[in-house]
Amino acid sequence: MKPTHIEHIGIAVKNLEVSIPLFEKLLGTVCYSIEEVADQFVKTAFFRVGQTKIELLESTDPNGVISTFIDKRGEGIHHIAFATDNVDQALLDAKENGFRLIDRVSRKGADGMNIGFLNPRNTNGILVEFCSKD
Amino acid sequence: MKPTHIEHIGIAVKNLEVSIPLFEKLLGTVCYSIEEVADQFVKTAFFRVGQTKIELLESTDPNGVISTFIDKRGEGIHHIAFATDNVDQALLDAKENGFRLIDRVSRKGADGMNIGFLNPRNTNGILVEFCSKD
Repeated sequence: MKPTHIEHIGIAVKNLEVSIPLFEKLLGTVCYSIEEVADQFVKTAFFRVGQTKIELLESTDPNGVISTFIDKRGEGIHHIAFATDNVDQALLDAKENGFRLIDRVSRKGADGMNIGFLNPRNTNGILVEFCSKD
Repeated sequence: MKPTHIEHIGIAVKNLEVSIPLFEKLLGTVCYSIEEVADQFVKTAFFRVGQTKIELLESTDPNGVISTFIDKRGEGIHHIAFATDNVDQALLDAKENGFRLIDRVSRKGADGMNIGFLNPRNTNGILVEFCSKD
């Protein structure tokens, strides 16, 4: 299943209070949404740039995935999310094409999206997410 | 100067011969251009996903920036490029907003673009590029 566009780029940051004004200056646009995703231990802040959102991710738990990422690699790009018409089909297609999956089936993510991740070990180190609105 | 969209995402890879078919499967689209940028010691391969290009970068020199990046961090996302109407103005605006510049003025990059980079030290660790067609 061919992705239609890059839905968002997820960026791990230590502190949204610092990074939101930084990205507002960088992108020349205001943050339009702040949302906590409790089951993923993150607080997210969104900006729009054309078709794509920039999603800043601050950890709400010192053992969460974003804390672990920052401890290991520092702040920076955490994942790329590709918009598809059907996440479950995209995950199935990826599996058939030899990619390893983190999520076998889609689950609910931030911003009301259905999401599913591939294992970065065979995507050149990139954490790839597929997502769809329905 | 507000970026209009994400022009491309640059991804550092060890070997284009391995990574091009991998990304063709992942993105469901073929690589439409391969180009060597001699003065940056890289060979690039491009894919389109909506408004954005995926640019794979293979080093042509063991001391080049992409080799150094991979030695330090492994394969993965190297930079994000934001499309603007005028790179020089975008660089000036960024400097006025407190960002540090790698390029004070624009220069020629791959795919016929004018490009300029910000220093990742005060962009949450992200190497940000501005680019324009003219």
